[in-house]
Amino acid sequence: MLEIYDCTLREGMQAEGLSFSVSDKLAVIRALDSLGIAYIEAGTPGSNPKDEELFRALADVSTDARIVAFGATRRKELTAEEDENLAALANAGTKVVTLYGKAWDRQVTEVLRTDLEENLAMVRDSVAFLKNAGKRVFFDAEHFFDGMAGNAEYALAVIEAAHEAGAERLILCDTNGGTLPHVVGEGVAAANKRLPDAVIGIHCHNDAGLAAASTITAVLAGAAQIQGTFSGVGERCGNADLTCVIPDLELKCGAECLPEGRLERITPVARKVAEYLNIKIPNRAPFIGKSAFAHKGGSHIDGVLKNSAAFEHIAPEAVGNKRRLLVSELSGRAAVRKLLERILPDTPVSDDEVGAVLAELKRLEAQGYQFEGAEESLELRVLALLGLRKKPFEVDYFKIIGETDRGESCTATAMISLHVGDERKVTAAEGMGPVNALDNALRRALTAFYPCISQVMLRDFKVRVIDNKDSTAAKVRVLIESTDGVSAWTTVGVSADVIEASFIALSDSLEYKLR
Amino acid sequence: MLEIYDCTLREGMQAEGLSFSVSDKLAVIRALDSLGIAYIEAGTPGSNPKDEELFRALADVSTDARIVAFGATRRKELTAEEDENLAALANAGTKVVTLYGKAWDRQVTEVLRTDLEENLAMVRDSVAFLKNAGKRVFFDAEHFFDGMAGNAEYALAVIEAAHEAGAERLILCDTNGGTLPHVVGEGVAAANKRLPDAVIGIHCHNDAGLAAASTITAVLAGAAQIQGTFSGVGERCGNADLTCVIPDLELKCGAECLPEGRLERITPVARKVAEYLNIKIPNRAPFIGKSAFAHKGGSHIDGVLKNSAAFEHIAPEAVGNKRRLLVSELSGRAAVRKLLERILPDTPVSDDEVGAVLAELKRLEAQGYQFEGAEESLELRVLALLGLRKKPFEVDYFKIIGETDRGESCTATAMISLHVGDERKVTAAEGMGPVNALDNALRRALTAFYPCISQVMLRDFKVRVIDNKDSTAAKVRVLIESTDGVSAWTTVGVSADVIEASFIALSDSLEYKLR
Repeated sequence: MLEIYDCTLREGMQAEGLSFSVSDKLAVIRALDSLGIAYIEAGTPGSNPKDEELFRALADVSTDARIVAFGATRRKELTAEEDENLAALANAGTKVVTLYGKAWDRQVTEVLRTDLEENLAMVRDSVAFLKNAGKRVFFDAEHFFDGMAGNAEYALAVIEAAHEAGAERLILCDTNGGTLPHVVGEGVAAANKRLPDAVIGIHCHNDAGLAAASTITAVLAGAAQIQGTFSGVGERCGNADLTCVIPDLELKCGAECLPEGRLERITPVARKVAEYLNIKIPNRAPFIGKSAFAHKGGSHIDGVLKNSAAFEHIAPEAVGNKRRLLVSELSGRAAVRKLLERILPDTPVSDDEVGAVLAELKRLEAQGYQFEGAEESLELRVLALLGLRKKPFEVDYFKIIGETDRGESCTATAMISLHVGDERKVTAAEGMGPVNALDNALRRALTAFYPCISQVMLRDFKVRVIDNKDSTAAKVRVLIESTDGVSAWTTVGVSADVIEASFIALSDSLEYKLR
Repeated sequence: MLEIYDCTLREGMQAEGLSFSVSDKLAVIRALDSLGIAYIEAGTPGSNPKDEELFRALADVSTDARIVAFGATRRKELTAEEDENLAALANAGTKVVTLYGKAWDRQVTEVLRTDLEENLAMVRDSVAFLKNAGKRVFFDAEHFFDGMAGNAEYALAVIEAAHEAGAERLILCDTNGGTLPHVVGEGVAAANKRLPDAVIGIHCHNDAGLAAASTITAVLAGAAQIQGTFSGVGERCGNADLTCVIPDLELKCGAECLPEGRLERITPVARKVAEYLNIKIPNRAPFIGKSAFAHKGGSHIDGVLKNSAAFEHIAPEAVGNKRRLLVSELSGRAAVRKLLERILPDTPVSDDEVGAVLAELKRLEAQGYQFEGAEESLELRVLALLGLRKKPFEVDYFKIIGETDRGESCTATAMISLHVGDERKVTAAEGMGPVNALDNALRRALTAFYPCISQVMLRDFKVRVIDNKDSTAAKVRVLIESTDGVSAWTTVGVSADVIEASFIALSDSLEYKLR
């Protein structure tokens, strides 16, 4: 079984635009643990107050995964005992520590600005110090592959020094991410040849778009530990993406990475992790993306309905994802028919109805609607077209007023009039801004009729300018993801007015809940 | 020199969420042509009205690139002369046509539902028909690698049939995107061995996250034509991303893909194409992404300042991108000092000032600000902190009123009071929604003082909910990209009120222009 070592929390912090709280990090650790990841790198003790708090909190958390503290070898011209970062690692409370040190001679002389012998001593001393402190020590050989290209003998001497000092794993890092996969394979083979009794790991960055391939090549060349991150977050172009590498290794290379039966949890776990990291998984992400098994072209939809292997390299269920047939101007009648069969399972659908839905779809798409990410709004519109939409409420009008003195907090109020059957209700509400005021007014009015509305929470709210030519008067598309704690749904509104577009998506969302 | 064959327009249309107008497609063709792409696949004539209009329009467009029409081999049990799709290809007005046909026996029997001999005849007849019509014909062997795994002799017989009928290129397709790179390499070698005088091409999908690696492996095994798409758009997980494969091949494999001196245009061209496709290039995209050469960790920033090769696998300029040092809670004093030196090139900066800026930055980041994508807002705030921000205008207050009858178009009005020096101006404006009304009122007021404001256009407008727990009352971060036709800049506002957050970003944007 291969060892999966996750660096999401440490590398992710080095990614542009990412920053996690301690509770985010703890939530990510729980999610990764539920998948059966062997090692989870939590952070660098002593480097910042957040990570110090995290390591204190981790003392009370029990996981199957082993939690790892990460840090540098001792600084030059100090003893290991004098180095406060090593002391922080020794005191971090984790059994496993990963130390990183330089394996490229040029980095030693030009960045560390010390001599090659001192760097070897830094590696040896630091590993030995932490071994003596009772730790299991892993060694990340930074820039190993660039080092091999420049001075192979020295790169190998660095990992040998770590090995002799007692490091249990020697992880070869493509720190700059520029090495081609076959060169990575050769480096792993050279390390294995030099140190046949060492356990070799691999840590690749994605600057050349090849991190997944390099990682797989390293495994085929004998690497036993795989380092990477969820959704590939990390410095610059990120790291090898474990959500891609793990399925590749398990489904295509016959390697075991996770305990039996866990692979099918990888899509939900990846989505949960992304939520804690506050990132969006690209629709196109292999295996776990929303579009990974989505079919749009008419002939592809036709093919996949006849034989799923026609356009799917694996069964979506193997990674906990699902097939989707997209309804669009390209997809044609087969996809619309499938959609209608799903929405109205007990009703026969005529060819005329399929044609009418297709035509309406094209009209709405021309207006700027896009239903591929908002199937629930599409459902409401299809029902309306077929005369089957029973509106649980009708909005007569709304008004909003906003007022802001710069520097003071804003005030916004909204008023809404709606009716359910013959009963009319006019409510007003304040809010943090007009969208929120309107949301509050709408919910207040509806809760009087439908108490279950109070369970609905908005989970995400996205605004996309559709046509940039008209600047702030451009049409916007608002996507709202809602949840009632049990299921989640997405609705869409399009308007030149961000408030109106938000309102359409909001009222669709509440209507969907009430169906 | 390798042949680059771009499928962005055809594959992109099959991607979830994408849909291009004829003028978008023409703009993409011009952009790709400026980079020196050899072949551009424009679409499928006869398949939909947009592509028909496109091919008519292309008759008047002159490009160095050869434009390609794409379509299927004849349908079963028809003659080539009877097939209307082949007729459309013959009449499309392009010199080059790419035909696709199945190379996997199971697809022939289970999806086409015909026999293996008839499929070979379909390939032969269709190629011959278009050759007779005076075309250069390329043949896309769909599912070639799955075919090799299942029935290698048949897969090879299919490309042989195309070759014998006169196809000039035999493109081996990993249609389902599930083949490992070394297996792709073996398939290319097998095709080369069977048909040593044929020119082999490669077309990989990214369902296993390996399309770039597979494409490079195919080139190393002898493929001479590379198919892919810009930013990797395409069905499901997309295609081999040319913005990654081209730099990899040119900078790391010593292969020529583009005319001399064009590679350094790839980042601006890719960003232009993304704008026409209305997609966002992920920050993390190798080579062309905004973060591709961005450094955030303190030790990385320190290293890259000492020696750029420390954490950069290539020089950013080689692909027309640039290095960025990010200012964040991790980056520390070196990055802040660099930033101050850039903003205030002629002023010496004291350690106290560096410290004050860092502290302010942490305070704003804790509030939800993030400046990594909005350097211009950061600049204004740093100047303010140092007492050097000269505000070209001061806003006293604003009010907005919005009113919407469902079904009717909305009306929104905004009123703003601001002063420049001692002169005060109160304006009101209507708009498509309150953000636009406010934008209009602000511009109207400012144009009286500063006529150059009329050149500023908003290019993109993004809203991100920072903390989902409070639903529509959650804090939002609004990012606004503006341009005056010459340069572009990005500003950010954070508030629980989408209007106020937009207003902060808008007024920062106009203030930045006026500096």
